[in-house]
Amino acid sequence: MTHNSTNYGVEILCIGTELLLGNILNSNAKWLAIQLASLGLPHYRQTVVGDNSYRLEKALLESSERSQILVTTGGLGPTPDDLTTETIASTFNTSLEERSEILDAIEEKMSLNGSLTAQSNKKQAYFPIGAKIIPNPTGTAPGMIWVPKPNFTIITLPGVPSEMKQMWTETVLPWLNKCGIVKDTYVSKIMRFTNIPESSLSDQIKDLLSNNNPTVAPYAELGEVKLRLTAKAKDSKQANKLLRPIEEALKQRLGDHYYGSDDENMASVILNLLQKKEQTLSVAESCTGGGAGALISSIPGASKVFKGGVIAYSNTIKEKILGVPSDILNSYGAVSSQVAKAMAEGVREQLNTDWAIAITGLAGPEGKTKDKPIGLVHIAVAGPGVCKTITEKFGSHRERVSIQKLSIVRSLDNLRQLLIARV
Amino acid sequence: MTHNSTNYGVEILCIGTELLLGNILNSNAKWLAIQLASLGLPHYRQTVVGDNSYRLEKALLESSERSQILVTTGGLGPTPDDLTTETIASTFNTSLEERSEILDAIEEKMSLNGSLTAQSNKKQAYFPIGAKIIPNPTGTAPGMIWVPKPNFTIITLPGVPSEMKQMWTETVLPWLNKCGIVKDTYVSKIMRFTNIPESSLSDQIKDLLSNNNPTVAPYAELGEVKLRLTAKAKDSKQANKLLRPIEEALKQRLGDHYYGSDDENMASVILNLLQKKEQTLSVAESCTGGGAGALISSIPGASKVFKGGVIAYSNTIKEKILGVPSDILNSYGAVSSQVAKAMAEGVREQLNTDWAIAITGLAGPEGKTKDKPIGLVHIAVAGPGVCKTITEKFGSHRERVSIQKLSIVRSLDNLRQLLIARV
Repeated sequence: MTHNSTNYGVEILCIGTELLLGNILNSNAKWLAIQLASLGLPHYRQTVVGDNSYRLEKALLESSERSQILVTTGGLGPTPDDLTTETIASTFNTSLEERSEILDAIEEKMSLNGSLTAQSNKKQAYFPIGAKIIPNPTGTAPGMIWVPKPNFTIITLPGVPSEMKQMWTETVLPWLNKCGIVKDTYVSKIMRFTNIPESSLSDQIKDLLSNNNPTVAPYAELGEVKLRLTAKAKDSKQANKLLRPIEEALKQRLGDHYYGSDDENMASVILNLLQKKEQTLSVAESCTGGGAGALISSIPGASKVFKGGVIAYSNTIKEKILGVPSDILNSYGAVSSQVAKAMAEGVREQLNTDWAIAITGLAGPEGKTKDKPIGLVHIAVAGPGVCKTITEKFGSHRERVSIQKLSIVRSLDNLRQLLIARV
Repeated sequence: MTHNSTNYGVEILCIGTELLLGNILNSNAKWLAIQLASLGLPHYRQTVVGDNSYRLEKALLESSERSQILVTTGGLGPTPDDLTTETIASTFNTSLEERSEILDAIEEKMSLNGSLTAQSNKKQAYFPIGAKIIPNPTGTAPGMIWVPKPNFTIITLPGVPSEMKQMWTETVLPWLNKCGIVKDTYVSKIMRFTNIPESSLSDQIKDLLSNNNPTVAPYAELGEVKLRLTAKAKDSKQANKLLRPIEEALKQRLGDHYYGSDDENMASVILNLLQKKEQTLSVAESCTGGGAGALISSIPGASKVFKGGVIAYSNTIKEKILGVPSDILNSYGAVSSQVAKAMAEGVREQLNTDWAIAITGLAGPEGKTKDKPIGLVHIAVAGPGVCKTITEKFGSHRERVSIQKLSIVRSLDNLRQLLIARV
């Protein structure tokens, strides 16, 4: 240990009684920890305290003895239990001053939303003398970067994750890069794989998982496994040069299981493939109820490719709008590969698109029969001269929403496979 | 503050470098926090440290000065970086002793899995002298309940959530109930409000926010504000009795803004209302792309009420499937209240449902015109003898997915208002 005597590293302090009551997961700490790791900043402690000025003050003083930078989240809102800024100021014996430009910005934002600025919003414009403001482009709670004592900086961010992330990226990150604490350059890349269990993937790349620079670390999520590659070098050009051969090796070993990198998701990958081919897509969804369409529509620019679809929860709609023949429905039941095929072909014809996806299955918890367990899902992908059907058994132990999500991922991945095969 | 001088309350210390790297969410802390809250045990701090004995020792000593009980998770495994038990023993100057009965249990478990007991597993049988063992029925890592100094107890649990939970429930909970620390009973209730900013809501209930028992605390999320009411009493019956008048007062003051409690969400509330009336629902979605249908379908049993819908991203589909007249599309544009109305009426007729929701708007980031900014969304709700249209301006500063989510919440809330008005 070389860092016992002087303040060192970055700590995270999350403020909110809702965390101590277990009402919410501390996803902010996880996100910030990833950011610190990607900057190569030493990060050895995370703390959670409630909305209580006495205990917040204690945590602030302790951290100021241990760390060089403290990042806080939460307690910047307009209500009386939001007391982060005022407690920080009083802990370090500093007065608050009104920043009129912030009050103006809050008033403007509230009026855009058709609201009046409440009396309680006014306190969000008070900051310790000397603090640098972190603007909050979407919410009413700005943060601050403030040096209350030598070799100790406090960075405050709101608890709302979207606001916190935007403020980090737009203001805190550039500040950290400039202030000299970031030494080496770390470049990370996420590679995304699907339709393979984490254990099989790990077995195939065991040698790479023990690599030193870049490091390769796996994370399993529902329907995908991510690998995070992190290279350390003197600049980002050198770091990228280290990443490239590992990336290539992973693509080669894992073939079609690799589907995208970084912020890509299955929907954005498919939209890109379709846009390059100038082809269009529609969906016919039963058990997913619109989730595939929603995922596709969440991507900016989706309308260039995605024309729409039919949520065919009831059999009547499958027949009437999608033209699924009633004898197929009667012979095989709504959850069958025959019906999935007819749904895909029906929506493709009705909506006049190049490609169509159909999903019909049992998401549970009710509805199982002797032959058809919860988790049974039939998928069909119809396209020019092709209609592929896939049967998935996701397992009856899974929750409804997980079965829905896996159905969507598998249907989109099968479309992806067909699109790639036709390049 | 009355608890400054003596050790007080329960702290949680999660041990694992993977938490500091942001590899995993700290779901253990959330789960344990809920358990502590339900027992009414004061819980004022959570800490995370990595697999490092120096920093673990510091955290242990600090906590031993503040708290009466410390619950740790993680670091009980067989690998060299699992060092919780030995660090705790050395921090409080106590030797480890082998517990042969534990080694036997580990060997039995490993052989059941067809594995030999690795050398590294043996360390899992060593505990500080005097520690009470917490058996681990499914894994190889037992925990302990140990009193290293007067008025301070350490409870160690493994990091694997399923093992941790089972060990808590089977051993720790009975111990806590017996040891005399559990005094009062706490009952919490979440009340959910919509279509009102957190600041306005707070201003209307300022007096209740400073209430002592039950306490009332607000949390804002996208599209809703939650209030958490927590009552303390000698049993749950008394606690519920304390909650009731506050609940009633909140419902009275905030009227239709209140929409549900606890695990309810807007979709489940609507499905309940419709099921009581034996009425059915369909959706016609443009800019939300299926998200309203997906939210409704995420609720178990949705198919009793929800028949399906049309994702009408392209104008052709609005015309062809929903029967929106082309002259309306041409005169007013796809994003207009006229088109929303025609979509709602069209899908209601086509799918033969009692109620229908339609959403058409600009979710961005592309597509704005001089008259129609990003964030402009038209909603229509059609039902027996009624078709209400609503225009929302969510603001062009918002992200696409936020605009989509707000559109869904507002459309469902408007349906809710109409359903309530007809009780």
